Amino acid sequence: MDVKSVLEQVQRGAMSVADAQRYFDRKAFEDMGYAKIDTYREIRSGFPEVVYCAGKPDAYLQAIYQKIAAEQGEVFGTRATEAQYELVRQVLPAVVYDPVARTLKVERAAKKRIGCIAVCTAGTADIPVAEEAAQTAEFFGSHVERIYDVGVSGLHRLLARTELLQQANCVVAVAGMEGALASVIGGLVRNPVIAVPTSVGYGASFHGVSALLTMINSCANCVSVVNIDNGYGAGYIATQINRLAVGGRQE
Amino acid sequence: MDVKSVLEQVQRGAMSVADAQRYFDRKAFEDMGYAKIDTYREIRSGFPEVVYCAGKPDAYLQAIYQKIAAEQGEVFGTRATEAQYELVRQVLPAVVYDPVARTLKVERAAKKRIGCIAVCTAGTADIPVAEEAAQTAEFFGSHVERIYDVGVSGLHRLLARTELLQQANCVVAVAGMEGALASVIGGLVRNPVIAVPTSVGYGASFHGVSALLTMINSCANCVSVVNIDNGYGAGYIATQINRLAVGGRQE
Amino acid sequence: MDVKSVLEQVQRGAMSVADAQRYFDRKAFEDMGYAKIDTYREIRSGFPEVVYCAGKPDAYLQAIYQKIAAEQGEVFGTRATEAQYELVRQVLPAVVYDPVARTLKVERAAKKRIGCIAVCTAGTADIPVAEEAAQTAEFFGSHVERIYDVGVSGLHRLLARTELLQQANCVVAVAGMEGALASVIGGLVRNPVIAVPTSVGYGASFHGVSALLTMINSCANCVSVVNIDNGYGAGYIATQINRLAVGGRQE
Amino acid sequence: MDVKSVLEQVQRGAMSVADAQRYFDRKAFEDMGYAKIDTYREIRSGFPEVVYCAGKPDAYLQAIYQKIAAEQGEVFGTRATEAQYELVRQVLPAVVYDPVARTLKVERAAKKRIGCIAVCTAGTADIPVAEEAAQTAEFFGSHVERIYDVGVSGLHRLLARTELLQQANCVVAVAGMEGALASVIGGLVRNPVIAVPTSVGYGASFHGVSALLTMINSCANCVSVVNIDNGYGAGYIATQINRLAVGGRQE
Amino acid sequence: MDVKSVLEQVQRGAMSVADAQRYFDRKAFEDMGYAKIDTYREIRSGFPEVVYCAGKPDAYLQAIYQKIAAEQGEVFGTRATEAQYELVRQVLPAVVYDPVARTLKVERAAKKRIGCIAVCTAGTADIPVAEEAAQTAEFFGSHVERIYDVGVSGLHRLLARTELLQQANCVVAVAGMEGALASVIGGLVRNPVIAVPTSVGYGASFHGVSALLTMINSCANCVSVVNIDNGYGAGYIATQINRLAVGGRQE
Amino acid sequence: MDVKSVLEQVQRGAMSVADAQRYFDRKAFEDMGYAKIDTYREIRSGFPEVVYCAGKPDAYLQAIYQKIAAEQGEVFGTRATEAQYELVRQVLPAVVYDPVARTLKVERAAKKRIGCIAVCTAGTADIPVAEEAAQTAEFFGSHVERIYDVGVSGLHRLLARTELLQQANCVVAVAGMEGALASVIGGLVRNPVIAVPTSVGYGASFHGVSALLTMINSCANCVSVVNIDNGYGAGYIATQINRLAVGGRQE
Amino acid sequence: MDVKSVLEQVQRGAMSVADAQRYFDRKAFEDMGYAKIDTYREIRSGFPEVVYCAGKPDAYLQAIYQKIAAEQGEVFGTRATEAQYELVRQVLPAVVYDPVARTLKVERAAKKRIGCIAVCTAGTADIPVAEEAAQTAEFFGSHVERIYDVGVSGLHRLLARTELLQQANCVVAVAGMEGALASVIGGLVRNPVIAVPTSVGYGASFHGVSALLTMINSCANCVSVVNIDNGYGAGYIATQINRLAVGGRQE
Amino acid sequence: MDVKSVLEQVQRGAMSVADAQRYFDRKAFEDMGYAKIDTYREIRSGFPEVVYCAGKPDAYLQAIYQKIAAEQGEVFGTRATEAQYELVRQVLPAVVYDPVARTLKVERAAKKRIGCIAVCTAGTADIPVAEEAAQTAEFFGSHVERIYDVGVSGLHRLLARTELLQQANCVVAVAGMEGALASVIGGLVRNPVIAVPTSVGYGASFHGVSALLTMINSCANCVSVVNIDNGYGAGYIATQINRLAVGGRQE
Repeated sequence: MDVKSVLEQVQRGAMSVADAQRYFDRKAFEDMGYAKIDTYREIRSGFPEVVYCAGKPDAYLQAIYQKIAAEQGEVFGTRATEAQYELVRQVLPAVVYDPVARTLKVERAAKKRIGCIAVCTAGTADIPVAEEAAQTAEFFGSHVERIYDVGVSGLHRLLARTELLQQANCVVAVAGMEGALASVIGGLVRNPVIAVPTSVGYGASFHGVSALLTMINSCANCVSVVNIDNGYGAGYIATQINRLAVGGRQE
Repeated sequence: MDVKSVLEQVQRGAMSVADAQRYFDRKAFEDMGYAKIDTYREIRSGFPEVVYCAGKPDAYLQAIYQKIAAEQGEVFGTRATEAQYELVRQVLPAVVYDPVARTLKVERAAKKRIGCIAVCTAGTADIPVAEEAAQTAEFFGSHVERIYDVGVSGLHRLLARTELLQQANCVVAVAGMEGALASVIGGLVRNPVIAVPTSVGYGASFHGVSALLTMINSCANCVSVVNIDNGYGAGYIATQINRLAVGGRQE
Repeated sequence: MDVKSVLEQVQRGAMSVADAQRYFDRKAFEDMGYAKIDTYREIRSGFPEVVYCAGKPDAYLQAIYQKIAAEQGEVFGTRATEAQYELVRQVLPAVVYDPVARTLKVERAAKKRIGCIAVCTAGTADIPVAEEAAQTAEFFGSHVERIYDVGVSGLHRLLARTELLQQANCVVAVAGMEGALASVIGGLVRNPVIAVPTSVGYGASFHGVSALLTMINSCANCVSVVNIDNGYGAGYIATQINRLAVGGRQE
Repeated sequence: MDVKSVLEQVQRGAMSVADAQRYFDRKAFEDMGYAKIDTYREIRSGFPEVVYCAGKPDAYLQAIYQKIAAEQGEVFGTRATEAQYELVRQVLPAVVYDPVARTLKVERAAKKRIGCIAVCTAGTADIPVAEEAAQTAEFFGSHVERIYDVGVSGLHRLLARTELLQQANCVVAVAGMEGALASVIGGLVRNPVIAVPTSVGYGASFHGVSALLTMINSCANCVSVVNIDNGYGAGYIATQINRLAVGGRQE
Repeated sequence: MDVKSVLEQVQRGAMSVADAQRYFDRKAFEDMGYAKIDTYREIRSGFPEVVYCAGKPDAYLQAIYQKIAAEQGEVFGTRATEAQYELVRQVLPAVVYDPVARTLKVERAAKKRIGCIAVCTAGTADIPVAEEAAQTAEFFGSHVERIYDVGVSGLHRLLARTELLQQANCVVAVAGMEGALASVIGGLVRNPVIAVPTSVGYGASFHGVSALLTMINSCANCVSVVNIDNGYGAGYIATQINRLAVGGRQE
Repeated sequence: MDVKSVLEQVQRGAMSVADAQRYFDRKAFEDMGYAKIDTYREIRSGFPEVVYCAGKPDAYLQAIYQKIAAEQGEVFGTRATEAQYELVRQVLPAVVYDPVARTLKVERAAKKRIGCIAVCTAGTADIPVAEEAAQTAEFFGSHVERIYDVGVSGLHRLLARTELLQQANCVVAVAGMEGALASVIGGLVRNPVIAVPTSVGYGASFHGVSALLTMINSCANCVSVVNIDNGYGAGYIATQINRLAVGGRQE
Repeated sequence: MDVKSVLEQVQRGAMSVADAQRYFDRKAFEDMGYAKIDTYREIRSGFPEVVYCAGKPDAYLQAIYQKIAAEQGEVFGTRATEAQYELVRQVLPAVVYDPVARTLKVERAAKKRIGCIAVCTAGTADIPVAEEAAQTAEFFGSHVERIYDVGVSGLHRLLARTELLQQANCVVAVAGMEGALASVIGGLVRNPVIAVPTSVGYGASFHGVSALLTMINSCANCVSVVNIDNGYGAGYIATQINRLAVGGRQE
Repeated sequence: MDVKSVLEQVQRGAMSVADAQRYFDRKAFEDMGYAKIDTYREIRSGFPEVVYCAGKPDAYLQAIYQKIAAEQGEVFGTRATEAQYELVRQVLPAVVYDPVARTLKVERAAKKRIGCIAVCTAGTADIPVAEEAAQTAEFFGSHVERIYDVGVSGLHRLLARTELLQQANCVVAVAGMEGALASVIGGLVRNPVIAVPTSVGYGASFHGVSALLTMINSCANCVSVVNIDNGYGAGYIATQINRLAVGGRQE
């Protein structure tokens, strides 16, 4: 922070006390009353703002998509409904909706995708969460390999992809029910595994809690875990790791 | 039940009403006040009585070991302490104690062991529970193959034993922590897998609850589950299945 | 696995290195992108593929029913809705739907059914899960005896069927609420009991968790447990045991 | 309450306003600072004060036993340790300790015991809790029948006592592990069943929680439940019911 | 059971062996395939069969109402919906529906009601469960006093009814949220309190679990607990106690 | 209470015994059968009655709004639906509905608002609960400052408001998901913080339980917690504290 | 914060840029490596630092007691053991230990105590937690009234103290088991109630969780809750409220 | 895998079929009966074997330390007790024990440490877990910065280290109680945060479960979580990320 230069300007009269005070009082966000847009977010974190669509009021959703698309040239949202797609399309005709991943986005063409992230699922029912992760990572500029339906009760399907798993800078393992996939993958690779429990299952799966516990207790050292169905978070962290592997943050 | 013959004897005067009434009133157990010894148990279930040593008062433990050994020529107990071993040895010098499995037994020499049960563990810390299962099955006359320390984060160790697993009439899969072993084995075999969660682990393993949930949610169809650390129950059920496979109880 | 013969062919020039390499690289599944059909499943497990209908996309459901029916001459699915029945019927007119068990199937006529499995319920509300178990076992070739509505608060109804229970190679005990049925049956028989907790109940039944805990804690040694409402798994395991008892898979 | 007579006395000058005010201000307890002895308790509830020994400071325990014994000629305490017995015996030599039930008492000789309460246990390990219940009921003047070790996995032991169970005004069913005893008894009798879950068990018994859930979900309508290991409460309620059945409190 | 007289008849030739055998083989229930009507239930328990309407198939519901009404002259059901009322009314025009208690019944006129049961609620939202309890007790012949909306945060409302509470042979305490009502009432009365937790509340009330825990942990000795929202069970047990107090079942 | 003056009137003949008895028997509530209106509530607690609209029958809701508005000139309700607004508007046209906070009220104009309460949220999705708290406090006469969308993952937004937080007599911290806001605020202020967990979140947020646990475990000493989504309770307690700080209730 | 005056001093040359920079860089804590002493804590929060003794290494405990006593003339610690008392006494002979509350302190004589806080317990076993709360409040300068052993199953004991409860600026309600005390007190008073669940109880009390749930679900609006056994936090918050009521911090 | 070269050797006769078959059959582990040493582990994962000392039998612990030290020149173990240190020192005098972190190791001198990992704790009680993480990362060759006692209730301590946090390739956030530290750090940095819940706390902290839930629900996208007290896992994953950032494994 540039405290020193401000103080020097004040000392030599180049900045008034009032202006300097404003500098120290400045708020690094835009206050819209009901929300405080975190305008320095991309500078601080290296990631642009993403829209969590679930439960957003209609008018606000339209406004925020328009605004971000105008400012950044692209916009990415998760947990969107078909109806929200229709709403946003009215004000942003270029928007694209994926009914499986439930992403709603405008993405710049010919985006360069770096490194390698592998996104795996135990079953086909885990694919929506996996796609949220994969598309998040792709939007943030990562190259993604999808390895779906390779659950542990049919091991040969997973083992056939060992080489690909071992080449990835980060593996995202998405599984519901007993969630054992992350541990098995963790035993095959040398880079971090981000485990995503899903709410797929019934009975004692407790909407993903059983899979979460399996993953948190993993005997594979390289496994860390995010919230149930949190594909977005997994794609985000995988991108952080992938960027570091490729050479740190993109400039 | 032989109701008809009793009735015919009453009809032709060969049995008094009082005797017949006693027949219908008979109690198929020996009442010792604080306990009701289930004397027809072996006839009904096909298994002799086994001693659950944990918490048994000293005098009662000595008495019951002496009594069963005298009547059956052998006796098997689980969850015994070193101190209980010393106690029972005073009255039954032939008794043998296994400090790992915590079994306390007198076993007939040269017992014939039929069929094949595979007992597997994820780690070395699961061996006490696995040994309780294995020794139970052996005491009940089953042949047992031990496959220990083959947890899912080092899959090649397990896969090297695939053939042995596939030959067993029943597999007992013993695992703590994330308990994924049962699902992986379940995907490799065609016979039933009895899963035993263990209390091995820390933190969110919740003394075996996480492993129990993993196993109950198994995506492998052939997995059924017993209580945490219940090696005895697993060895018992595996023996039932093994006997059925070999052609009923050994005589 | 026939590694040796492949190697011998390579040695004597009967197989090129490229072909042999393909052999070792071969994937024992058919990769359809979003799903990997486990084509060697029946060989490995002894059971044909079964369709878990819940949540399957419409087009995929129609395709998979058509494909399996064409290849195997019969097809079995669970957790199907009335609407899915209508969908599948459009492409496979012979399909039959059971609104109680929610099974959707085409079954070869005059299938031979071997051995004996008893399927019991505590109440009438448990029948859908029991029927899923019973019809699964029947589809896989087992003879099934149904003993419904014999809950423990009216014991005489259960005791009247003791003989039948004792003749079965395996008993499937289906119960919600307090789930005590499995323990009581376990005390009457000499063969394994597969306990299925159901989500029947209210309040502190916690959608089947209470029944699950009851069954996992069973004082009857022969009880093992599957997931809440998992009739399919119970029918599957019971068939495995029944086949072993009869002398292996029916041919 | 005799408000009217107090007011009439004030009206006719037989009681001063100050005295009447004291009447309305009176506190129906004796305030000892750290405790407020509920002196009107027996009048209000029909039961004398009982000592819950667990955790009581030594001096206070001695004092309270002396005081109650002096005032009432007898005294009853639960959850006492061997060490507490030694302490109390120093000041009250007549005190009797039961190491199984952990009761510590002086009881009037030749106490008349009315009606009939049946106290049952599933196993021998449940006997300490059952004895707390039985001895509580006996101290409060009820006749008690003990039916121990009649768990549901050996039903014939329980059924042999059906007649006795049906004669009781109230049955106390004490069970740990899966706790199914209460439901089975509930199906055999016409009077209330008080279910007491015990902390007997291991693994997923969760120190009695599983048994508690089983009992709360009982399909038998006549079952109500008290806290885990709360033999005292069960004996207390059973006595209330037994007194009502016999015709109110014994005098 | 009249075993002796059967045997004597056989002895003196008054009964054939075949008939006697049928006697011992008789099944005390009517087997309808999907249900086993417990025909000796009223004799065994002292209570007629009651219909739990929730989830009953339409045709079966109509049939059972018709049958019980025909045989017994009255019929009582719980957890009925408005739609089920319309269904049953088609075949049994005299049926009466209470949309608050959700009871559906035909009740004999001028039924004598004995003794006294007090049914209390903490709030107005608990009234549906309380009415299920009250109407159950009334149908079974008990006199009921309703004391509603007397929750512990406005104690004077409850204390104003102390006398009435103390006169009841049994108090049913119905409360959701923190469920403290049962303990407070338990401190005021000398007869049993049956506590019914309700699913009323939000957030950490967990659909009645918090109230259930409060009641199970009650410091008042006379409180026992039934399942969440189980008004029927509470009314049933209260009637058992009330009958014992009055001197057995009303005739 | 004025017992003395009543007694003195009785003594000097100014009040009959019957009238005085009525005084002592009087019930400080109005009994409407299904509800007992707590008429002395405002005197006892310092707060007028507030309507919890959720689940109230239509007719009763209209009646109670009319009655309270007539008696007090204003009325405040929480958890109201749009439909309930329409209902109440029919009988009370001045009523105002806030679809975010779900409050339904008639409020006296130009109400004086004293002191200062700060109401903060972590995100925009927490605003409905925060508004319930804020409007409750305002209705009860407190001045409220709103500080919304200042969650801990963008700390600078919160720190920019430190001065305002430190001036408040009480801070209400409203947060879902991980609920960390209360601890961070607690470290910045010297007055009490009332933490309100919200049901905002998904997966392992367990509908607010995770946020509740975070807040209950707060390392900041000044944090106490109310139920999930209980904005009303937080606004109520904050007003109590604010009134004490300003010098008692506003008149 | 005095940013303006610093800037003005820099402007007029009264402060060097280096000094001003230090001002903005200053760290309001003393870094001791393993701990960061929060030296501005009292200024920020109005409370001096208090020692949480549990688990503190011996040497560190002695040092911190010496240091705080030297700087502030008094020192207060909680959760101290008898052994820690002996340790601290070696270096600070004036230290006083209370074995019930487990507080360890040196307190200035004749400290003025302002306002009024009432600390209540349900039973005698809750007194240790209550004393921690009471002594905390007293150390921080509040006047405390103790009202112990007034649990809800003997309501008259509590009602006899109604006037005292109503005079307090804040009530601390300490209770284990079912924890109903807070709700009952909440219905009697107009000022805030801080509820402290205790780990007193057994079985389904779950070491205080049941009491915590009861209190969080309180139907009394004025109740907020702190962690199980957190007497210190309750005494702290009660002091904050008491200070506000009296007119800010005592000087 | 080098399948091709093996096949080519077989083709040209350079390798016998038997040898090649052994190649495909080879087991990449050393089978010691009770354990299967994973000899290819370092090659596969990039990390040498580490000893989890908890519960290891004495003789085995000595043997494994000797063996690894001999083979690798250094050895690292976690969760060691003082007694285990004495044991290992007998056979490996160079071993060093850290009683805080409970690590037991022999480490090569002058090991080069690359990159930067920041390890932070909320309080001093979290330091043992943090040291396990830090020493693990250091043993694996990472440079570590320790930032301890920077919990969220004294934010200025954490903010003073913002620059250091932002320079790290990965931050390990260690916290018990409410566990909010990870979210706050997550909002300040651009690289991944590995959150480690600790069992520090009491009451509703549930031995770390509350902190775990807080972290899993983090609103900061970059946070992933490992098991309670799993410092080793966090240090391991942080090293993986650090290595990727620096450019792969250090050589």
